[in-house]
Amino acid sequence: MRQRYQLKQRPQRSRSYESDEHERGACEWCEYALVITLATILLIGVSALTIFWTFFYREGYGWADDIPEKQFNLHPTLMVAGFITFSGFSVLLYRICRCFRRIYVKLLHAIFHALAFPCIVIGFLAVLDFHNKKGINNFYSLHSWVGFVAMGLFGLQYAVGFFSFLLLLICNKGTANFRASLVPIHAAFGILTFVLGVCACLTGLTEKALFTLGAERYSGLPDEGVIINAIGVAIIAILAVVMYIVSRDKFKADSREMRASVDL
Amino acid sequence: MRQRYQLKQRPQRSRSYESDEHERGACEWCEYALVITLATILLIGVSALTIFWTFFYREGYGWADDIPEKQFNLHPTLMVAGFITFSGFSVLLYRICRCFRRIYVKLLHAIFHALAFPCIVIGFLAVLDFHNKKGINNFYSLHSWVGFVAMGLFGLQYAVGFFSFLLLLICNKGTANFRASLVPIHAAFGILTFVLGVCACLTGLTEKALFTLGAERYSGLPDEGVIINAIGVAIIAILAVVMYIVSRDKFKADSREMRASVDL
Repeated sequence: MRQRYQLKQRPQRSRSYESDEHERGACEWCEYALVITLATILLIGVSALTIFWTFFYREGYGWADDIPEKQFNLHPTLMVAGFITFSGFSVLLYRICRCFRRIYVKLLHAIFHALAFPCIVIGFLAVLDFHNKKGINNFYSLHSWVGFVAMGLFGLQYAVGFFSFLLLLICNKGTANFRASLVPIHAAFGILTFVLGVCACLTGLTEKALFTLGAERYSGLPDEGVIINAIGVAIIAILAVVMYIVSRDKFKADSREMRASVDL
Repeated sequence: MRQRYQLKQRPQRSRSYESDEHERGACEWCEYALVITLATILLIGVSALTIFWTFFYREGYGWADDIPEKQFNLHPTLMVAGFITFSGFSVLLYRICRCFRRIYVKLLHAIFHALAFPCIVIGFLAVLDFHNKKGINNFYSLHSWVGFVAMGLFGLQYAVGFFSFLLLLICNKGTANFRASLVPIHAAFGILTFVLGVCACLTGLTEKALFTLGAERYSGLPDEGVIINAIGVAIIAILAVVMYIVSRDKFKADSREMRASVDL
């Protein structure tokens, strides 16, 4: 009787366990797909919105001497592209690409930061040249100070990352311990750089709204004011998604893969 | 001969190992003391600097109808105190108090957030009433949108934290799993709230500098402009220290203690 009971029970238990596992796996993949989709929409959307704002309200881009404002327009667009879109994709891909070999993920991480690099440099030169043409002082505002620190950290992080995690692979085994000890420092400073980029963009958008619209028109919240605020809100949403991805251990490559990554 | 060699070698190895351990321990405590000192100076310093700015350049505080600007001055001071100083100390104490029983650390964390709460509420009411007195619209700027989200998240986090990690201790064992699963979510949203508080402060300082000094005077970087920028830089430095503390596993209570904390 007991044997029959056991025979009857076993398949049921096993089915229920499998179903639980299956459900958990499905849930995890669902969250994974949702986060990737949301992040992609936001990261492309914020740059698209900035370009739309420039063409619809600010007369587009240029580098001629007659309309320096068109040259200034390169500054917000390229800085948002560099500090938010490309840097955001770079962090995102590094954390969620679990199916590729780690060396390819590292290369993707480096390539997206390499795309951000010229954006930040040209975006910086555009505003510097605009200020000089218009006779405006440089580096007086809080926005410029925050942006300067963010750019410095970005450059330093790129140099250290490129040298340590790609060039030092030439001497793979000899540098494994050094590279492994550098990973948490590189990650912490990387997130700090991203957050500083966000702070620079938000203070920059606030400045731009007050310079262009003026305090009185801005307080009436015209269409352009809504667009500027929407760009800021999209940047905050990206920050929230990136911090969620970074804080979730589930999105992290497991320790076995990490060891292999250090060896590659 | 071999035995003599071994006898000669052993004490040397042991001494070297002990000295290594000792050195590592000393280094760790040195880093720990440095981080606490730096964080304390910055957290108290940023509020002190804001109060100095208000008294030296903005005529101090008040809530009378004749000079509404004095009422506005409560806004930056209380928001910096609430979102940066008290919230910063709360995060810091939660992470670095390793010698106390976990329940006391939790209570300290709750008390510092409880000190931040009235600061944020009164700071918000001060600017709302100032706007109404002066006939200025509310909630039009990016700063106000970011601040509104930060305040909402702060309130939600406080309610969830108080209910889940203090009130639910009445039913200690029954709620242990629920509380343990809530810890990473509460921590991630807590850091996001802190970062949003930083963003709100930086955009607010940018607005204030442009409203009070005007674009032209600000671009000449007068003394008051330097003080406003210095408050922003101190906030950024605090953000860097807090993110460093949060990212360092060394400052984290170990997993055995964490289990005990869930049970308390």
